[in-house]
Amino acid sequence: MRQAYHEELNEVAKELVRMAELVGTAIEQATTALLDVNLTLAETVIAGDEKVDIAQRVLDQRAQNLLARQQPVATDLRILITSLRIAADLERMGDLARHIAKLARLRYPSSAIPESVREVVKEMGQVASRMASHMATVLSTRNVTSALELEKEDDQMDRLHQTLFHEMLDGAWHEGVECAVDVALCSRYYERFADHAVSVADRVVFLVTGERSREYTKSGH
Amino acid sequence: MRQAYHEELNEVAKELVRMAELVGTAIEQATTALLDVNLTLAETVIAGDEKVDIAQRVLDQRAQNLLARQQPVATDLRILITSLRIAADLERMGDLARHIAKLARLRYPSSAIPESVREVVKEMGQVASRMASHMATVLSTRNVTSALELEKEDDQMDRLHQTLFHEMLDGAWHEGVECAVDVALCSRYYERFADHAVSVADRVVFLVTGERSREYTKSGH
Repeated sequence: MRQAYHEELNEVAKELVRMAELVGTAIEQATTALLDVNLTLAETVIAGDEKVDIAQRVLDQRAQNLLARQQPVATDLRILITSLRIAADLERMGDLARHIAKLARLRYPSSAIPESVREVVKEMGQVASRMASHMATVLSTRNVTSALELEKEDDQMDRLHQTLFHEMLDGAWHEGVECAVDVALCSRYYERFADHAVSVADRVVFLVTGERSREYTKSGH
Repeated sequence: MRQAYHEELNEVAKELVRMAELVGTAIEQATTALLDVNLTLAETVIAGDEKVDIAQRVLDQRAQNLLARQQPVATDLRILITSLRIAADLERMGDLARHIAKLARLRYPSSAIPESVREVVKEMGQVASRMASHMATVLSTRNVTSALELEKEDDQMDRLHQTLFHEMLDGAWHEGVECAVDVALCSRYYERFADHAVSVADRVVFLVTGERSREYTKSGH
């Protein structure tokens, strides 16, 4: 019985990694769709988000069944509750990738992103993809040191987000209002995507140590 | 023992209502701060968000203690897991009210919202406040019919969100890029606030019936 139970717990953990990988692919493809004005790829991301949603529902059901049948305490309970929360973050990250793809589709065959900020948006996309991949590794290894490093990548994302806003608001913006609104929302989607990746990493730290990242680093680790 | 347990469950339910009320006050004050260019009120909302965050942490701890000590099954388990999720929605709604207040503070002593879209933003604020109050009632009464009605208010919010975007993008916008970006983000915050309110209502339906809103209405209720 305990054997089967731990196998089920393992399944939950694996499912989280798989969701993280789906979300990583989604943000990578959404960025390409956006920058290369690729409608097919945009459609792929939009339709593909359902997979993430379904994965979350399956994982939720599994975790709740385990909670009901096995009545775990202490560490196992923490793992299950935290897994439910991680799944919610991942589901939201899928939504944000879909939002970016939808923006690409909305402006097709034009580009939602003007040449003047293309490089910054490209970099945001790269940081987002790197964070998604880093997050998947953290979910798989549960390495606390590695989890804490995601914060630094998020700082990079925040700087890019600010750069973009400065470029738009410094008075030398010639791309018009529609474009500014698109870029602003897009930038916000990437920034939120990164926030959720940090949140997932933070939850892994909690899952392993019983403390949140901030408490954990404060307590001198 | 069971008596104490049900009292604790009641406490969790009450705490959710209290959080919903805090969030309702926050969005109302944030809207006033934004439209009346009221810095003091903006600061109040920004500082006050901590109360919502603390309430969430307290509620989380309480729910997790109950899960660990009482090992509830079936309905009680569903109530606790769902309460954790509702608390996460409410915490996020507090963040969104804070974002709106921060925008008011950022542009002070100017207004972030130009006269030309003031009425639409005002209406968004009113719908958001109404939804927050409706949501608090639903949390308190657990009335499924009333919960399902939040969807309609959300449709209204979506229409206002679209109206605002049309006004900005119809070519007759004379307020400049910075202003358009502010209005776009602000509109997005209200729209997300409303989405979370619907999510809370949906979770109450699940809590009571064991089905999500969509399944519940589909099954002919």
